[in-house]
This record gives sequence, structure tokens and C-alpha cells, in this order.
Amino acid sequence: MALIVQKFGGTSVADAGRLRNVARIIADTYRQGHQVVAVLSAQGDTTDDLIEKAREINPQASKREMDMLLSTGEQISCALCAMAIEALGLPVVSLTGWQAGFRTNSQYGNARIKKVRHDRILEELDKRRIVIVTGFQGMSRYEDITTLGRGGSDTSAVALAASLRADLCQIYTDVEGVYTADPRLVPGAHKLDEITYDEMLELATLGAQVLHNRSVEMAKRYNVNLEVLSSFSGKPGTKVKEVVKRMERSHISGVAKDKNIARLALVGLEDTPGIAFKIFSLLARSNLNVDLILQSIGRSDTKDISFTVAKSDLEQAKQLLWDNRESIAFDHIDVCENIAKVSVVGAGMYNNPGVAAAMFEALFNAGINISMISTSEIKVSVLVDMDQADRAVQVIHDQFTEELEGRR
Amino acid sequence: MALIVQKFGGTSVADAGRLRNVARIIADTYRQGHQVVAVLSAQGDTTDDLIEKAREINPQASKREMDMLLSTGEQISCALCAMAIEALGLPVVSLTGWQAGFRTNSQYGNARIKKVRHDRILEELDKRRIVIVTGFQGMSRYEDITTLGRGGSDTSAVALAASLRADLCQIYTDVEGVYTADPRLVPGAHKLDEITYDEMLELATLGAQVLHNRSVEMAKRYNVNLEVLSSFSGKPGTKVKEVVKRMERSHISGVAKDKNIARLALVGLEDTPGIAFKIFSLLARSNLNVDLILQSIGRSDTKDISFTVAKSDLEQAKQLLWDNRESIAFDHIDVCENIAKVSVVGAGMYNNPGVAAAMFEALFNAGINISMISTSEIKVSVLVDMDQADRAVQVIHDQFTEELEGRR
Repeated sequence: MALIVQKFGGTSVADAGRLRNVARIIADTYRQGHQVVAVLSAQGDTTDDLIEKAREINPQASKREMDMLLSTGEQISCALCAMAIEALGLPVVSLTGWQAGFRTNSQYGNARIKKVRHDRILEELDKRRIVIVTGFQGMSRYEDITTLGRGGSDTSAVALAASLRADLCQIYTDVEGVYTADPRLVPGAHKLDEITYDEMLELATLGAQVLHNRSVEMAKRYNVNLEVLSSFSGKPGTKVKEVVKRMERSHISGVAKDKNIARLALVGLEDTPGIAFKIFSLLARSNLNVDLILQSIGRSDTKDISFTVAKSDLEQAKQLLWDNRESIAFDHIDVCENIAKVSVVGAGMYNNPGVAAAMFEALFNAGINISMISTSEIKVSVLVDMDQADRAVQVIHDQFTEELEGRR
Repeated sequence: MALIVQKFGGTSVADAGRLRNVARIIADTYRQGHQVVAVLSAQGDTTDDLIEKAREINPQASKREMDMLLSTGEQISCALCAMAIEALGLPVVSLTGWQAGFRTNSQYGNARIKKVRHDRILEELDKRRIVIVTGFQGMSRYEDITTLGRGGSDTSAVALAASLRADLCQIYTDVEGVYTADPRLVPGAHKLDEITYDEMLELATLGAQVLHNRSVEMAKRYNVNLEVLSSFSGKPGTKVKEVVKRMERSHISGVAKDKNIARLALVGLEDTPGIAFKIFSLLARSNLNVDLILQSIGRSDTKDISFTVAKSDLEQAKQLLWDNRESIAFDHIDVCENIAKVSVVGAGMYNNPGVAAAMFEALFNAGINISMISTSEIKVSVLVDMDQADRAVQVIHDQFTEELEGRR
């Protein structure tokens, strides 16, 4: 008997038929003799509908009341799923975030989990009940309802798996697992059987959108065995863990693309020490994440600093920099949104400098220009024009096809 | 400065426009310097929509999961109302049943309030915040969400007013107050300025449907000053209290009609002692409320017992009696659904036997037949054919017009 945490996303529970399908998956696992805790997102568009309702009333509604409102979405899907399991004749109980013991800080809309007081869940499991838990939410020390922000339900599931020392945490979604590249765009892309936390982290950050990096970071920290799989196909998915079996020659795990970025350049900066620190600490204090950074020597006594941010952060970053124009002392801000980031990820890269070279070669042969480059121990990212991004992913994937085949 | 509890029903919060209207009523009260706690129902058809969703998944869903599901309705309306008040620039916080301290027993779907731990509400009021509370719900000792059943939100408001020793509990609804008869049906019906708890109780039970009798009973027990008024008109409503000012000659407060009843008759009972006790204790154990009872001597050595139940309880009552046919020993059950109960209510009736006589006279003059009669200290009820019910209300109202005028 194992303790298994299963997480189902919004598309997996979108309507009555899909909820019944999820109930069957949970019931099958339970009938195999396992203890099952299932974490659910809100149904399909419920959250968006609720946000729209709030906007109609008050576009500047407080985050506290937004959390009060949005948390109902998961409560509805969980109650309905419990009813579907009752219809299969199995013992089940649904729990809200606060009932399940999720204690968070008070950062409404983007709360952090501080601990999971799982006594109630253990009691219910001891009674041989299936436990359905609302993802995405918890309770602050003031007994207020909080939500966890983007990727919240994945994080709820992993936190629960860590707290309960679950044997496995299955993330059910609408894709069959983690692919070497987007299979809708890249012929020859294939599903990986296994991937390390670090590789998954890079892929998540890079826009593979299968798992939120916040949940992968937590899984790595607490060594939670993850599996990403489809709630529709029933096939085995991709296992995410610390170490994966792999032949020596396989270095890379995938090629990913992120179009949701923009490049900012501060032009005409004075070439004084500490200027980079000034800029990036300013952005960090406003919680603006910066990705690729390029510092170039400009004309004579000035220099430029370029960096990328998420498109959704662009306006705020621009405004913040502009407000501090005098203290930073730059000439003007140059913005480019017509770009994409293409990355090769693989834990074996570190000892194999040939990976970056092969990637650049592929892009050069295809006539694709690289405007920025960033490397880490397990990835190489380049910035290219947006309309060349898909082809860039394809030619890089082709270049590494033999490598990638070795991972199957 | 007074502490005022205001309750708004489903039609009063049905959409964004109406929620803004409710927010204005609350804000006006707050701006007059009062402390305000508002109790809200779910928006318009939300509860019915959720019930439909549940039915699609599992028509036999457990009551526990139904409560988990249905309680989201008030959470949504309360969060949205708080947002509307935020938009008016006033400090506000919304609280769920468990946050507001409603502790109930574990009878899911029809829970009883055991106490209201109002510490959180007092804290928020001390901060000069408006407090919005979800009606209809609470938390059991097992930390499960419960709902209070029919009339739940009225009961929530009155319980809160009692617990907080509020100066006034205003029940906002879609009618302007309590009328001497249904103003849509009876020309000459008019709004009462004041009415006693007991009169209101009789009217509520009899189908006036302004206030649920459960909430009136509680208001009487804790001496909560109630006011029933419209959230649309802004006019003064009807005050419900222990003693009302009234001229000696005014005896009656209203004429009410209830079509939602059915008459059952057990025919051919043996004429043995204790038979009535056997029948009605059996029904009571299944929580089936019986209203008018008539025991008649039948043929030679047998007798019949007739009584009325709510239409919704009819099938269950019939089945229960049939299952116990041998121990009760009756010949057959006779059912009539084509009936209505018409009642005259008034606290001054007790010392004025002329009221019943005047009522019967009015019905006799109109050629309306009476099949059963029941009287209490403050009411006289008769059973008539359903298609004569509206005319019965009219002729009785006409008969007492002078009396009723005296109450204005």
C-alpha cells in the first residue's frame, strides 16, 4: 500500500463528464489498495468568470476579497468530485484549504505555504476515506482565506506530498508528459520517460508550461517523486526525480521556447561602478523578475545594459526605471517585444561544451540571428526574433535528434 | 451610535446593480455613525444552479458534500458586496460562516446554530469596519461546513443580532413589509407598521413568506428588535416586537393563505385509546410536521383522523403510514391536495370570540365551504377548496377592513 497524491488541473475537471473521469482515476488507484489524496483546481473557466464578476463590481477590489471570492472555485470542483466518487460507492470527504491544514502567510493573491497541519487528512485516511483537497488556497494566521497565485494547485499538491511523505505525487494534466519540444510544433519531438528536477525547473521556467517552477523547486527541496501524466490517455507519463538513468552520451533533455518576454535596454548609462546593482536591486524590490542580462560597452564613456522581463511586467518595469531616471542616470529606454527565448536544457551539458557550439551552429546554418546568449550549468538560452522562434526550435531539435533519441 | 444587523435576501443581491444598491444602503447606515453587520444570501439563482450541477453528477449526493458545495454561494455574494463597499471608499471585511463564529450541530443541510463566537466580528467592528457575513451557514464541531436549511439566512441574521445584542435587526427583502393580506391578490390590503412576534409567527407559518418562522421564534426568545423592509423602495417597513401600540378595538393583524399543504385522512381506524398518540409520534420521529388535526367518529366502531402536512412531506408521510399499516390498523388512506388554508391572525383575538364568528359569517355569505377548522389564542384557520382560497382571503379581509384600518 502506497500513499499517493494526485493533482488534477482545470481542464481535467471542466465538466460533469470529466469529473466522472477523474473520479474513476482516483477510484482505480484506491481500489488497488492505495491511500489517495487528490488536489483539484477550479473547473475550466470558473476562476476567469469570477474575476470578471469582480471587475464588473470593482476593478480595484482588494486582494483579500479577491481571495475570498476565487477560493470558491476549488471548493465547488472538490465537492462535485467527492459526489462523483460517492456515486461509485467509495468513502470520500472533500476538504477546503483551511480544513486540510494549509497555513500560509498573509500575502493575499500570492501567499506562501508555511506549513501543512495534516492531522485532519491523516484521520480521514485512517478511516480509509479518499480525501479531496482544494488546490491553490490556504488560511493565514488571522484566519483569512488566501490563494497561492500562479501554479498554486501544483504547489498545493507537492506541499501535501512532502508533508505526508507520500510515495508519489502525480500531476494529471492535458498533455501526456514532458516532451523534448512542443510536439504540436516540432516533428520528431517525443515524450521523456524521466527528467531531473533541475532540468524540469529550466523547462518550466522556459515556458514548457507543464509544471510551475514553484512546485518543482519544492519537489526538489523535499525530494518528492513527481509524475506528469495525462488524465485523458491513461498512458504512463514523465517521472521527475533527483537522478535519472541515462546513457553517458545523452546530454540534453529538451528544447523550449518562451514568447512571453520583452527586452529592455537602458542606453547611455554612465560607466560607474555599482550601476548594475542599483538597477537590479530596484527591480527586485518591486518583485520584478529579470532573466537574461547583457552588459555592453557603448559609445566612449557610456554603456548599455539590456535584460529581459516577462511581458506582463514590462510596463511596470519601464515606469519604475523612468521614475528613477535621475538617480540611475541613463539617456533613454529601448524596448523590444518582438523576441523569443529558445533554450536547450540538459543535466549532462556541464561537462560537454560542445552542446552550446552545436546549438549555435544549427542556428547559423539556418540563418537565424542571435541577439543575446545566456548559459547555466544545465541550459543554454538564446534570444531570437519572434518570427524565427519556431524554426529555431526545429533546427536545434533536429541537430540533437540523436541525443534526444537516447533519452527515450 | 447603534449596532445594526442588516440581512439581504437573494433577490436583493441578484446582480451587480443590485449589489451596488445593497452596498449603498449599508454605506448610508455606516455613515450615520452606526456599526453595521450585514448578512447576505446567495445571489438569485446561484443555489439552484449549484443544486442542478450536483444532481447531474450524483442525485444521491451526501448532505455533507452538498453543504460544502452550496456554502460557496453566500461566499461569492459576500465577497462581491465587500468589493462594492470598497468601491465606495469605506473599510469593510467579508467573513464566511466559520470565520464569523457560527457553530452548529452536525445535521448537514438543516443544521441548528449552537452558538455564535463573535470575537472576530467585534474585533473588526472595533476597527470601524463594516462586516459582511455569509448567511445560511456555519461550522460543526468537526470543522465541517454546514448549512442551516430553509430560512437559514434570516436565522443567521437574528442569531447574530441576539449574540451581539444589536439594537436592531433589519430584514431587507423584495416586499415593503408585512401586509394584512397579499397585496397582489387583495384590494385594500395594506402594510402594517408594527406586529408582535406571535402574530408574525402565525403569519410566517401560514405562508406569508416574508420571514421564516424559525428566525421569528429566535427573535422572540432573545427579544431581538426586527424590522422587515424593502431593499428597493427605501420606505420604512414593518417592526416586529414583543408589544405593539394598538387601539383596543383592533384585534386582527392580517389574513394569510397557504396553498402548499395536503390533507391526509386515515379512514377506518379502530376506536382504541392511544391511537392518535401512535400516529403522530410516528410522524414526529421522522421530522414530519403536522398542522390541522381533525378526529371524527366514523361508522359504528371505527373512526377517521384527518390532518394536514406540507405538500413536500406528503409522499414521505403516506409511505411511513402505509409501512405501519398493521400496527396502526386502518382501512385506507385518503389524500386531498386540492385544498388551501386561510387564516386570520391577531393578538387581540383571545378576548374576542366574535372574530371567529365574523370569519365564518363572511365565508358563509360567499358560499365557501369549510372542511376543517383550527383555532389558537391568536389565530383562526380554516381549510377550503384551493380554487376558493383567493376569494376566501378577499371576503375575510373585507369583513375585517375596519379592524385592519385601525392598525395603520
